[in-house]
Amino acid sequence: SNKLKKFIVSPYDPRYRFWELFLIVLVVYSAWVCPFELAFLRNLPSKLVLVENIVNGFFAIDIVMTFFVAYVDSKTHLLVDDRKRVAVRYLSTWFIFDVCSTAPFQPIILLFTHKGNDLSFKVLNLLRLWRLNRVSTLFARLEKDIRFNYFWTRCSKLISVTLFAVHCAGCFNYMLADRYPYPENTWIGAVMPTFRSESLWTRYVTALYWSITTLTTTGYGDLHAENPREMLFDIFYMLFNLGLTAYLIGNMTNLVVHGTSRTQKFRDSIYAASEFAARNQLPVSIKEQMLSHFCLQFKTEGYNQKTMLNGLPKGIRSSIAYSLFFPILRRAYLFHGVSNSFIAELVMEVQPEYFPPKEDIILQNEGAADIYLIVSGAVNMITTINGNEQVYAKVTNGDMFGEVGALCNITQPFTFRTAELSQLLRISRTRLREAIQNHREDNDILMNNLFQKL
Amino acid sequence: SNKLKKFIVSPYDPRYRFWELFLIVLVVYSAWVCPFELAFLRNLPSKLVLVENIVNGFFAIDIVMTFFVAYVDSKTHLLVDDRKRVAVRYLSTWFIFDVCSTAPFQPIILLFTHKGNDLSFKVLNLLRLWRLNRVSTLFARLEKDIRFNYFWTRCSKLISVTLFAVHCAGCFNYMLADRYPYPENTWIGAVMPTFRSESLWTRYVTALYWSITTLTTTGYGDLHAENPREMLFDIFYMLFNLGLTAYLIGNMTNLVVHGTSRTQKFRDSIYAASEFAARNQLPVSIKEQMLSHFCLQFKTEGYNQKTMLNGLPKGIRSSIAYSLFFPILRRAYLFHGVSNSFIAELVMEVQPEYFPPKEDIILQNEGAADIYLIVSGAVNMITTINGNEQVYAKVTNGDMFGEVGALCNITQPFTFRTAELSQLLRISRTRLREAIQNHREDNDILMNNLFQKL
Amino acid sequence: SNKLKKFIVSPYDPRYRFWELFLIVLVVYSAWVCPFELAFLRNLPSKLVLVENIVNGFFAIDIVMTFFVAYVDSKTHLLVDDRKRVAVRYLSTWFIFDVCSTAPFQPIILLFTHKGNDLSFKVLNLLRLWRLNRVSTLFARLEKDIRFNYFWTRCSKLISVTLFAVHCAGCFNYMLADRYPYPENTWIGAVMPTFRSESLWTRYVTALYWSITTLTTTGYGDLHAENPREMLFDIFYMLFNLGLTAYLIGNMTNLVVHGTSRTQKFRDSIYAASEFAARNQLPVSIKEQMLSHFCLQFKTEGYNQKTMLNGLPKGIRSSIAYSLFFPILRRAYLFHGVSNSFIAELVMEVQPEYFPPKEDIILQNEGAADIYLIVSGAVNMITTINGNEQVYAKVTNGDMFGEVGALCNITQPFTFRTAELSQLLRISRTRLREAIQNHREDNDILMNNLFQKL
Amino acid sequence: SNKLKKFIVSPYDPRYRFWELFLIVLVVYSAWVCPFELAFLRNLPSKLVLVENIVNGFFAIDIVMTFFVAYVDSKTHLLVDDRKRVAVRYLSTWFIFDVCSTAPFQPIILLFTHKGNDLSFKVLNLLRLWRLNRVSTLFARLEKDIRFNYFWTRCSKLISVTLFAVHCAGCFNYMLADRYPYPENTWIGAVMPTFRSESLWTRYVTALYWSITTLTTTGYGDLHAENPREMLFDIFYMLFNLGLTAYLIGNMTNLVVHGTSRTQKFRDSIYAASEFAARNQLPVSIKEQMLSHFCLQFKTEGYNQKTMLNGLPKGIRSSIAYSLFFPILRRAYLFHGVSNSFIAELVMEVQPEYFPPKEDIILQNEGAADIYLIVSGAVNMITTINGNEQVYAKVTNGDMFGEVGALCNITQPFTFRTAELSQLLRISRTRLREAIQNHREDNDILMNNLFQKL
Repeated sequence: SNKLKKFIVSPYDPRYRFWELFLIVLVVYSAWVCPFELAFLRNLPSKLVLVENIVNGFFAIDIVMTFFVAYVDSKTHLLVDDRKRVAVRYLSTWFIFDVCSTAPFQPIILLFTHKGNDLSFKVLNLLRLWRLNRVSTLFARLEKDIRFNYFWTRCSKLISVTLFAVHCAGCFNYMLADRYPYPENTWIGAVMPTFRSESLWTRYVTALYWSITTLTTTGYGDLHAENPREMLFDIFYMLFNLGLTAYLIGNMTNLVVHGTSRTQKFRDSIYAASEFAARNQLPVSIKEQMLSHFCLQFKTEGYNQKTMLNGLPKGIRSSIAYSLFFPILRRAYLFHGVSNSFIAELVMEVQPEYFPPKEDIILQNEGAADIYLIVSGAVNMITTINGNEQVYAKVTNGDMFGEVGALCNITQPFTFRTAELSQLLRISRTRLREAIQNHREDNDILMNNLFQKL
Repeated sequence: SNKLKKFIVSPYDPRYRFWELFLIVLVVYSAWVCPFELAFLRNLPSKLVLVENIVNGFFAIDIVMTFFVAYVDSKTHLLVDDRKRVAVRYLSTWFIFDVCSTAPFQPIILLFTHKGNDLSFKVLNLLRLWRLNRVSTLFARLEKDIRFNYFWTRCSKLISVTLFAVHCAGCFNYMLADRYPYPENTWIGAVMPTFRSESLWTRYVTALYWSITTLTTTGYGDLHAENPREMLFDIFYMLFNLGLTAYLIGNMTNLVVHGTSRTQKFRDSIYAASEFAARNQLPVSIKEQMLSHFCLQFKTEGYNQKTMLNGLPKGIRSSIAYSLFFPILRRAYLFHGVSNSFIAELVMEVQPEYFPPKEDIILQNEGAADIYLIVSGAVNMITTINGNEQVYAKVTNGDMFGEVGALCNITQPFTFRTAELSQLLRISRTRLREAIQNHREDNDILMNNLFQKL
Repeated sequence: SNKLKKFIVSPYDPRYRFWELFLIVLVVYSAWVCPFELAFLRNLPSKLVLVENIVNGFFAIDIVMTFFVAYVDSKTHLLVDDRKRVAVRYLSTWFIFDVCSTAPFQPIILLFTHKGNDLSFKVLNLLRLWRLNRVSTLFARLEKDIRFNYFWTRCSKLISVTLFAVHCAGCFNYMLADRYPYPENTWIGAVMPTFRSESLWTRYVTALYWSITTLTTTGYGDLHAENPREMLFDIFYMLFNLGLTAYLIGNMTNLVVHGTSRTQKFRDSIYAASEFAARNQLPVSIKEQMLSHFCLQFKTEGYNQKTMLNGLPKGIRSSIAYSLFFPILRRAYLFHGVSNSFIAELVMEVQPEYFPPKEDIILQNEGAADIYLIVSGAVNMITTINGNEQVYAKVTNGDMFGEVGALCNITQPFTFRTAELSQLLRISRTRLREAIQNHREDNDILMNNLFQKL
Repeated sequence: SNKLKKFIVSPYDPRYRFWELFLIVLVVYSAWVCPFELAFLRNLPSKLVLVENIVNGFFAIDIVMTFFVAYVDSKTHLLVDDRKRVAVRYLSTWFIFDVCSTAPFQPIILLFTHKGNDLSFKVLNLLRLWRLNRVSTLFARLEKDIRFNYFWTRCSKLISVTLFAVHCAGCFNYMLADRYPYPENTWIGAVMPTFRSESLWTRYVTALYWSITTLTTTGYGDLHAENPREMLFDIFYMLFNLGLTAYLIGNMTNLVVHGTSRTQKFRDSIYAASEFAARNQLPVSIKEQMLSHFCLQFKTEGYNQKTMLNGLPKGIRSSIAYSLFFPILRRAYLFHGVSNSFIAELVMEVQPEYFPPKEDIILQNEGAADIYLIVSGAVNMITTINGNEQVYAKVTNGDMFGEVGALCNITQPFTFRTAELSQLLRISRTRLREAIQNHREDNDILMNNLFQKL
């Protein structure tokens, strides 16, 4: 809704987001092609050079564009669209890195020296890998975006890292063999003496195969280091793998623990309830009420939502209560004619509760308790005559119960038991009395409503 | 108890549950035989074809049957037995998949073309693996079923997944070797040149052996990929293994953490209590009380049950309190003749507590405290004369203590210390006073009871 | 102190404990020797037979003895010393297993048949391994015994399990090779064709070496399965290893998480405090107070002890408060001459607190707050004159401060700041007033004490 | 600031810290060179002997110096600078170990015997490794120092341990081969028959390569144990590796869990809020308020800081409240002219809260609520006329709202909604009333201020 300055693009603009996504694709291409060129392509085919220049062109456009993209200030959390501040911020942070990872070094240097070391150019090309920080930024954003599943976001991040490591190590190890003076004394030459004349596909697959055999610590041993140079590289690669494997396992453990915590909490509750019932020889009906309560809470994720609501500030909780419960209370017979401010005060203290079928809410002869309002579902009024339970009536959607006991301070005349899955609003007796004391003029209306019903 | 419509079966019907279990057995058979056929059996023996057709028949019956099985609506949590809704739900979800995984493609296609590619039929057979979703559903249900140990349920799930992965990879790898044009250039042919003439048992065991050597990353290297095709398969298998191993370790860590958390919490409590006693030079008797309290709580799982009870809604907690404590309070001498509603009000606030032997409950000269009622066990009344403790009397099952101090507001005349493991009910002094104020007519009876005892 | 019946031994008797420990040593010997005999010793040397019979004798004695050892009933938590109940319990549980694991099968069967299969006897010997359940019981007890470090108890358990698995697998794998018809076609024969004539030491070390190479998934491949029988054993061993390794890692993770949780909580507190101070530009002195508070809490394990105390029932907390604080309060000038019951009531509500040096406890001009009593350390009274802080006086061990503000309801005339590490007792103002209201007769004495001081 | 006794150095002295750091560098050198000498250098070059003597000299200086360094007493947490106590403490703890790890055994023994076994001297040199405890002390300190990132501190500790293990095992394994009577029958001789004449570099890299191949369980198998002696060493090394790998993974898991817990808690909140909004069909505006609240809390680390503040004692919290809020309250129009002690009492109960833009703080027609004071940001007063929201006014920095409702006990006349990210102070209505009751004389001033504004 906020209008930005002229020529300034919002970072949330869908077209800009699409552009960013397009660049990510190019980054993935660069990350794959850079080590590959270095290791396998002694003479770069002209087609590949063309593609590379086009890719560089896109990144050059992006560098220019960044000067026209607003940013969110980390202190005020507001969008800054002042062109000068945008430029200063970019120039003082990543500008140099972006330029270095985009500049076409080969043509520039050739301009001056007319002759260049092939290898050093290719190594300079590795500066392109700086672009990978875009991918890491993307993953950091995806992790916080709840539209994407955390488990799969995290997994695809780990898989990307692993694949990139495998690819790089495979390429580098091949390069070591390719440039070693005695081809037959290299990891690949020892089993494939004429490896240089093999097809590119065979050589690349073999390199990847060695790389992943080492990374997963399978280590068949059919391909292994043959000279100190390769051994040294292997040492560093295995050390890195140790860390990477531990990191992968650590992440997976974290995800598994998080993913099963709800089920485990549920099982612990159920187990504790069963144990408690068995130890105290509780009647089966009560045991089943306990179990079905925990099952319902598990299915509706009741526990998490309660924790979440407690974390909100009072203002938002008021808004929620007002939006959800005001119309329901307004329609209840007990509050016909009372002032809006009375209901507004009451509404803040209302507690919504879910009850599974056949659960006792109020017990006959129990002392005065809270008042319940049925939002959905149905509740049976049950009376016990000569020890037999009889359903006296059924109260449904919009009805209230418990109000006689609470307002007249008498023991409950009936047991109230849910007939089906019901959502109820609980109004605390104490809170109701406080509200009545604050609005004396509404007391008579309320009592009038009550007596008319009786 | 709920009667379903005619011809509609309940999903909880034990006969239907048995049918489901029977199908699971068939699924396991299918899952094992599908990859095995593909890899090892060039010409399917007629016996196996017959068995397969019978299995398919059972699944066809199940497809028809599913139209007559009620389901639980995810919103209302009620059983839906309307035949039309059942059919619509099935047709719009898994029907197509079930049909595809059951249809006998081979005969159907042969009907039209008279000639079929053997391999493509076998690959079509892999559609049978869709049936495995039944196993995954079963495990999801078992995990939430407290009749089964969570640790072993989870372990058997992981073992099943591992074994299936090992079996599939072994079969697929053998197939690669079997269909490779140069048998001596395959992973198995390199060490067993005439492998095709070996017994089925030897070939299958060798394939499994290679598969598990790779999965566990042991990688002896006696059998290893020999051509790019096998290398490529190995790469994917090893990547999958990396994930699977991390997943296995993550799950095991989760189970270990969960399994030892109670012991660790117990040890932390005991350690903190010992440290506290040492730092403050507490008398040995108090230190031992602290330690034996935590030991008892650990043995009776007191901590978990407290947490569980706090998670229940007020209605159920009332039912439990009423069921457990009403008869006990009714029998107590102090409440002879008082009204039921008085006890009903009091019963909600009663706290059951376990005490190990030799633990002080009330100290002599302490201010007025709560009232205790002995449910089981025995408590010594101890008085200190000239610094020597003397057991004045022993109160047991059904007796009360602390009521004189609480009702007359005087300091405690005796120390009360458990003689053996005792379960007590604690009635808060404040709550008792509130209940008396709400039932003025019961006050005199109560005081009369008290004075008669004194 | 409890006297047991005649001829009945307590399970806590130190001599019985020593006997149990002695048996554990024999169990370890049995567990090592059983698989070893099976694999490596075709003809058992007579010395070993003798040792074995002696060991069996000890276990036979233990079976008899168990009939005279009292046990703890799991319901009442009391020691049962009734000889009949002890016997019934043992006969109905582990008696059969213990007898089977002790009986000398070889002599018994030879008595009847005069000829026995050597191998089957040795396999019967594996029944001895049932004795290992004693080791598992021992570890379960050690884990709950706080005299032993949990980390090392758990580690030694895991190491024992690992070593036993390595030993068993090594022996069993050797047995497979030893009894295979074609010695040169076995895992050991392939590299050591005349392995049967090698020394026992070489063969055992080689078997262990293969076993651990496989268990740790190193899998050099110098020794590997050569025939389907060995492959099959390898498959099961590797599957078992997968589980064992995951279990080891899970346990280690659990221990690491538990071991570092205190440091991490400490770091989180310190980090949050620093961030908070930086964000709100708090004065350096307040920031340092926050940091030194958390450091002190970390060093004194204050957090864990608070949690532990909250978990104790009221009775024990009263005992602790009474034992720790009554003498200190009794000596305080303010309570000279007041009744014991007044102090007894107050003592339950006293809060001990540690303060690092230079921490503000009460601020000048702050409203009436709580009363503090110095148990150890020293506190400076500081007054601010013309913006300069001046130390007015120093209060030490046994002194009180804050009482004037609390009892006369005036703002604090001084800032109180600790001069060194101090332990203080905090008496809540509200609680003190309540106690005074309950003991009107003590009010005058108290006020008199206060005015005499002023 | 505290002056120490003459000639006594503080352990916090920056120059002493530098000296300690310098010794750490020497320790690292010793730890690397000790095993290396033992394995690879049959005849120690004189240069190396010189360097070693110099290093030993530095450690000898440190031993002397330790007698002059004060230490922190673990009970009183105070610095002890008494020279006698410092000396007693050092002599009774690590003195012997330090001397043994520094003494030049070779010259001493040669003095007496004139001839010494080369190997035994070198083994004695391993006593130098005792110095490593300095590194472990350093890491223990770094872990608690928040200037260093916990993740990287822990990682570098683990990497150091791993590298040291790899180096030691490589050296020791080489030594085994070097001193074995049949060179061709050793792990290195089997592939490199003339290994003794290879360059030092090749031999060291090969040893390291074998060591790390085993540690990471890659186990290519190109280098493997060839004789029982090497097998035995391998067995112990692999067992050690199993533990080390589990420890590495456990640590990494711990770090990953800790590192992602904030993001996961955030995602759980966001997910629960979205679910709750969807289930209850909340208006989009309220849903967005909920989400932006959690986002803000995540960005400002609000949750951790709240927990941290709750852990502080009352004294420090008072200091913080006084320092942060007193000047702000003093400037508020409502408190013009009221006494300082009134504000001082109020200030303790003030709650700072952050609100994202467009969040409702007070709702129109809501009952009397709390009072808010704007510290930064801006809040719109909104009134709803005929269902249309209209901005009536904007209150900013230093303004108050809600005070009319709270003090006059009327319903809120306006909705207050943040216009931008705002920091507010919330003053509880109940607390304000209590403060007014305690300072009756300030009541009139307050009410006067209020009416003047109206």
